[in-house]
Amino acid sequence: MKCADSIEARSVEESFINLDPIQAAGRLTPEAMKAVISWGDGYSVCDNCHKPFRLDYVNNPPIADFHEEVAKWLNMDQVQLVPGARRAFQEVTGALVGKGEPVIMTGMGHYTAYLSVEVVNGIVREIKPTPDHHITADAAAVSIENATREFGYAPKLVFVDAVDFMYGNFHEVKEIAKVARQYDIPVIYNGAYTVGVLPVDGKKLGVDFVVGSGHKSMSAPAPSGILATTTEYADIVLRTTRIQGDVTGRKFGIKQVGILGCSLMGAPVVGLIASFPAVKERVNHFDEQLKNHKIVTDALLSIEGTKVASEYPRKHTMTRMDTTESFDRIAQIHRKRGFFLSSALGKRGITGIMPGVTKQWKFNTYGLTTSQAEYLADSFIEIAEENSMVIG
Amino acid sequence: MKCADSIEARSVEESFINLDPIQAAGRLTPEAMKAVISWGDGYSVCDNCHKPFRLDYVNNPPIADFHEEVAKWLNMDQVQLVPGARRAFQEVTGALVGKGEPVIMTGMGHYTAYLSVEVVNGIVREIKPTPDHHITADAAAVSIENATREFGYAPKLVFVDAVDFMYGNFHEVKEIAKVARQYDIPVIYNGAYTVGVLPVDGKKLGVDFVVGSGHKSMSAPAPSGILATTTEYADIVLRTTRIQGDVTGRKFGIKQVGILGCSLMGAPVVGLIASFPAVKERVNHFDEQLKNHKIVTDALLSIEGTKVASEYPRKHTMTRMDTTESFDRIAQIHRKRGFFLSSALGKRGITGIMPGVTKQWKFNTYGLTTSQAEYLADSFIEIAEENSMVIG
Repeated sequence: MKCADSIEARSVEESFINLDPIQAAGRLTPEAMKAVISWGDGYSVCDNCHKPFRLDYVNNPPIADFHEEVAKWLNMDQVQLVPGARRAFQEVTGALVGKGEPVIMTGMGHYTAYLSVEVVNGIVREIKPTPDHHITADAAAVSIENATREFGYAPKLVFVDAVDFMYGNFHEVKEIAKVARQYDIPVIYNGAYTVGVLPVDGKKLGVDFVVGSGHKSMSAPAPSGILATTTEYADIVLRTTRIQGDVTGRKFGIKQVGILGCSLMGAPVVGLIASFPAVKERVNHFDEQLKNHKIVTDALLSIEGTKVASEYPRKHTMTRMDTTESFDRIAQIHRKRGFFLSSALGKRGITGIMPGVTKQWKFNTYGLTTSQAEYLADSFIEIAEENSMVIG
Repeated sequence: MKCADSIEARSVEESFINLDPIQAAGRLTPEAMKAVISWGDGYSVCDNCHKPFRLDYVNNPPIADFHEEVAKWLNMDQVQLVPGARRAFQEVTGALVGKGEPVIMTGMGHYTAYLSVEVVNGIVREIKPTPDHHITADAAAVSIENATREFGYAPKLVFVDAVDFMYGNFHEVKEIAKVARQYDIPVIYNGAYTVGVLPVDGKKLGVDFVVGSGHKSMSAPAPSGILATTTEYADIVLRTTRIQGDVTGRKFGIKQVGILGCSLMGAPVVGLIASFPAVKERVNHFDEQLKNHKIVTDALLSIEGTKVASEYPRKHTMTRMDTTESFDRIAQIHRKRGFFLSSALGKRGITGIMPGVTKQWKFNTYGLTTSQAEYLADSFIEIAEENSMVIG
């Protein structure tokens, strides 16, 4: 079925249980979908834009209120919407990092964080992950101290991942922020896998910036995201324009430089707002999501040779499995090679695991019901049995 | 009617003839709306992302093909999608303009162009508009020469607006590009009001960058846009990442630095692609749009005291009217003051002109049918007659 001349209609969510690690918490709520249909035109949210002509002052749809609510929700002072978390990273590095200046990055950071440093010609100094894939405050202290010696001054910024994209592990955010504070270095919290998924309290964590992704974890259309900050850093990062035309004398009011004016229009912002009540509620029930996740990992672990590569017990629904000693052994002899697993899952209406991969692979059960989790668990066991694997 | 908890459903396009200057050419096509519904989840377009893991390589939906088609359509070498035209400006200034370096801007440029210079700490030197609101090659030569003397080297970039947002006037793009070429300065063509509205040939214009806005002129959701460039500048502006983790040795493949990796996901990109066949076709019929526009301006000009503030005869459907000597005279004595006009239009199912404004105001008839244009013309005359104005 086509939805346009050259575009097939997408039916992944209608036809499958989707385990895609980055898609799980971004699926639109019914409210977001309705809002997107109603407000789909790009400049729709500008219908009621009055003085001082900035998106975050618009009251219909309730964009202004949303900014305040999100700030409160994250326990931060100010919020700006952004077209994706990466644009929040860029806005912060753009304001705080000069050419050749060092930024501390965890060795498990997302590529967009690295690129946000590269785009301002900054230099990355990494925090070494532990052998079990954690970022510790001790390791952070070493990196900060080394960089300070190397450059003759403290790094300009520290990136920390609340939960990293590689393993879905939790890291010592609060403790790292404490170390950074001793050097007066601001800390940016990458909440791509936490904001919208579990409770986040920026002040309690002691971070200066909280970044969330709308399309990854807040059930909003792409590109969307949130940059929350403190009053102190709002003055710098959310600064308003001062440029003036040398001939015309033109000025541009209170438009913000770092975001190039109005931050996020149309479907993404209205989708974010529409999903927000559901998102605010669901973060309080992450334990239920973990229970469902455990049903699946328990089943997987019962297949001989299977390991969880992520930290264990799991504290997040996005998990990296190591099936080198189980499914990958079958892949060595199966006529479909590594594709036997994705193929067998596909037959059962399950998708989202990278096709062909049987050594280490990630999946995310966020948003599944208990009966879907049970079906998933049974499916993995069935596939193992079909291939004469040993169930423990 | 609500579409979500706190969000009223929008019915502007269903209930009104909408003359909003920035919304007219951005209204979604039915194809775009269907595509958005089908592909609304943010990471939907990543379902079929394979090596080398970059959005512009994705074949389903046909994102790769779309890049090629758009490049051909604009007669440029390469295209990158961007979350809004402003992000294209930023990507170009980020690659070409250093701190304290001069950029030539027309005095009628969009604020986002100015901010794209401010965000990289560049300096703006303006081209002075003529008294009748045009940017000429002669004036551009003066600005370039002055800036070259002032800074001791040629400016790093010249911004030109094909059609400016203030008056909807056409400017000497080709001639300005020729002048800039003599100084080896790259030229960025702001096609926010042309790309998707009328034919654009980048090579023929002799520009180095063509920027289009999806939500302004290509019937796509926000934020979306296009940055087209030459092979020469693609190497610089669309450069791939070179950053590497000092501890982990991590690299990030062929992700592009200036756009921070994958450029535009979900609804905006699928909407752009879905509308493209209609957009490609409609640019060949801009003369029909101008005919409809003339029906309206003729009616307005028949009201004594009314002037077109934009260049005349009109070559674009976005026009600035001067009704200081007509509607504004009524506003002085009407009990609704300046709001009498928007109120009278509203009663007739017409919206999009800034409420309360009766001196100079802009409107855009793009996309209206002939009978809608006639209705609009009649409505203006009726309102004038109701207020005892003289029809010439």
